[in-house]
Amino acid sequence: MPNRLTELREQIDEVDKELIEVFAKRLALVKEVGKVKSEIGTPVYVPEREIALLTKRRQEAAIKGVSPDLVEDVLRRIMRESYGAEDGAGFKCINPKVRKIVIIGGRGGMGRIFVKLFTQSGYQVASMGSRDWDSAPEILKDASLVIVCVPIDKTQLVIGKLNNLPKDCILADFTSTKSMPLEEMLKVHQGPVVGLHPMFGPDISTMAKQLVIWTVGRDDDACTWLYNQIELWGARIYRVNAKDHDDAMSYIQALRHFTTYCYGVFLAHENKDLEILMDLSSPIYRMELMMVGRLFAQDPSLYADIILSSAKNLDLIERYHQEIVDVIKMLKENDRDGFIEEFKNARAYFGEYAEIFLKESKGLLAKMHDAKGSKINC
Amino acid sequence: MPNRLTELREQIDEVDKELIEVFAKRLALVKEVGKVKSEIGTPVYVPEREIALLTKRRQEAAIKGVSPDLVEDVLRRIMRESYGAEDGAGFKCINPKVRKIVIIGGRGGMGRIFVKLFTQSGYQVASMGSRDWDSAPEILKDASLVIVCVPIDKTQLVIGKLNNLPKDCILADFTSTKSMPLEEMLKVHQGPVVGLHPMFGPDISTMAKQLVIWTVGRDDDACTWLYNQIELWGARIYRVNAKDHDDAMSYIQALRHFTTYCYGVFLAHENKDLEILMDLSSPIYRMELMMVGRLFAQDPSLYADIILSSAKNLDLIERYHQEIVDVIKMLKENDRDGFIEEFKNARAYFGEYAEIFLKESKGLLAKMHDAKGSKINC
Repeated sequence: MPNRLTELREQIDEVDKELIEVFAKRLALVKEVGKVKSEIGTPVYVPEREIALLTKRRQEAAIKGVSPDLVEDVLRRIMRESYGAEDGAGFKCINPKVRKIVIIGGRGGMGRIFVKLFTQSGYQVASMGSRDWDSAPEILKDASLVIVCVPIDKTQLVIGKLNNLPKDCILADFTSTKSMPLEEMLKVHQGPVVGLHPMFGPDISTMAKQLVIWTVGRDDDACTWLYNQIELWGARIYRVNAKDHDDAMSYIQALRHFTTYCYGVFLAHENKDLEILMDLSSPIYRMELMMVGRLFAQDPSLYADIILSSAKNLDLIERYHQEIVDVIKMLKENDRDGFIEEFKNARAYFGEYAEIFLKESKGLLAKMHDAKGSKINC
Repeated sequence: MPNRLTELREQIDEVDKELIEVFAKRLALVKEVGKVKSEIGTPVYVPEREIALLTKRRQEAAIKGVSPDLVEDVLRRIMRESYGAEDGAGFKCINPKVRKIVIIGGRGGMGRIFVKLFTQSGYQVASMGSRDWDSAPEILKDASLVIVCVPIDKTQLVIGKLNNLPKDCILADFTSTKSMPLEEMLKVHQGPVVGLHPMFGPDISTMAKQLVIWTVGRDDDACTWLYNQIELWGARIYRVNAKDHDDAMSYIQALRHFTTYCYGVFLAHENKDLEILMDLSSPIYRMELMMVGRLFAQDPSLYADIILSSAKNLDLIERYHQEIVDVIKMLKENDRDGFIEEFKNARAYFGEYAEIFLKESKGLLAKMHDAKGSKINC
């Protein structure tokens, strides 16, 4: 009997090797697609194509008795790789009249991504670091686009120095708040101004599907080529005014980072044995712990600056604190009904998203689970 | 030129169809493996086999110029499907001498999973619900194993009724705390006792790699067949004493659910427009929001009961609250250095896990990103 098992396993290995061959074939085709797209200037990410492709393959899978979800998951994973492979061919240059693009902070993580993308699109790009200010007049004098990509606490100072740009130059920034930088840029520069917020970290493998926030400053028409260039890279652009953006970021960044920070710092103070927490964790708690622990692998000053960037953040945090006080009071009074009523109130607030999130989290938990128990070291 | 693009896309479609064929072939082989394993009683999940298989395929992928991470991700995803397919063949029965297994609460989500697994393993299984207590003496009289799988607030009451089980019957429970049920079971029954805590939800597709907590009550040797049966289903069993388990669960379940609850209830009270939060979310915040929102798609009483199950949970929550008060004080004093110092302290606490978590989260965020922008409705 065990021989039969060995035999079957050898056959499975052969099938898996076939799989690798199929992948290699697909990636070769995708590289060709990248070349064609780069020449004709078609965006890397075309949602309609993705939906049509997945819908058809799901139907075919069902006919063959293969789980459509399996096929969709695998194809999405391959497409991620494919977008990266397409990027390799470079991108069409939307505005060949651009003289030079200067990225201040172009040697930082986020800066490097954009230096690479603009270069791959045929633009002349210069990076400026904190030690290059002496030669700034020379570097900036023929710029058509200057992007400020420095830590949030240095943004105001850096923008203040940009008072001598060419009149037709676009001045832009990547800061995670938008009101203050936009105001400063409009003050210092008379030409086109736009505030951007790339909603991703410096570790992305492709711009396909990434979100870039676009807040209008001045002369938006003059910025159209930049808009189209970013779209060509595959990103989605979302237009919003600076106030609404900053208000949402208080919740999205400041409050959430605050709660994550508090939880991690608390565990450290309790000095709770992390090994036993890991050993006893269900997938969902391992995921929660992952979300907390990952914060502390990153730059502390980034988080300090985000939270301390506005007095409004502190107001929000104080209101959140009051909520905690109220819930604790309820628990101390053993008010089970009150707890459940507030729960239902929050469920109504989340509406259909509660179910969507539950479903989505199942896919992620399953992925997390796939990797459990066997770590590959290579 | 667009013709060339159409041509390439057609070729990609053909390759993707080939992929489905390969999957179909693999699943057919895996079903055979399931049959063989079921006959000889080999566990569904064999870590060594998984590691060996993945390591080899990674190496082969690298040689063919295909990303090893892509191949590993896809194979893990297929293996998840494969374990499910193997299960279909049923499992070997470890202890054919078992007369009958009774699962109290066997019609609930978690109960149903175990009714199915025991049945697939050739045991005679009976479910008991709250309306079956009149016929309890009849149902329980020849039981070899009774599992209490009822909501935590009913556990004590239900165990109290089990004072007339056969002397050699194993009494077990699935409650998410272990000290109280174990104590009650030992009081009411003189035979073998074991406290179990399956660390997963009722929506799993396979037991492969799932974690089951095992707390010894009495006569552990008599429970060996149960232990082996659970392992044969592919689960990992973790032995721990009831106190350590409950202590860890205060952090893992009670405190974490409390913080998630507070955040969701707060957003609801603020009545912050969820659409704009979603639109402006980076992948990481979408994931955070998902983790919060998913809670509210579930049963409120479950969460109330977990948090209110022990006075220790409230003590822990109060200590956590004090941490929040301290952090807010620091922020109000604009104590950036203090914030960073505590950050570094927490980083030291998380140790190498901070980096591990960061890396792991990248894989999950990428998966989340794969699905962005294009929803398939079928």
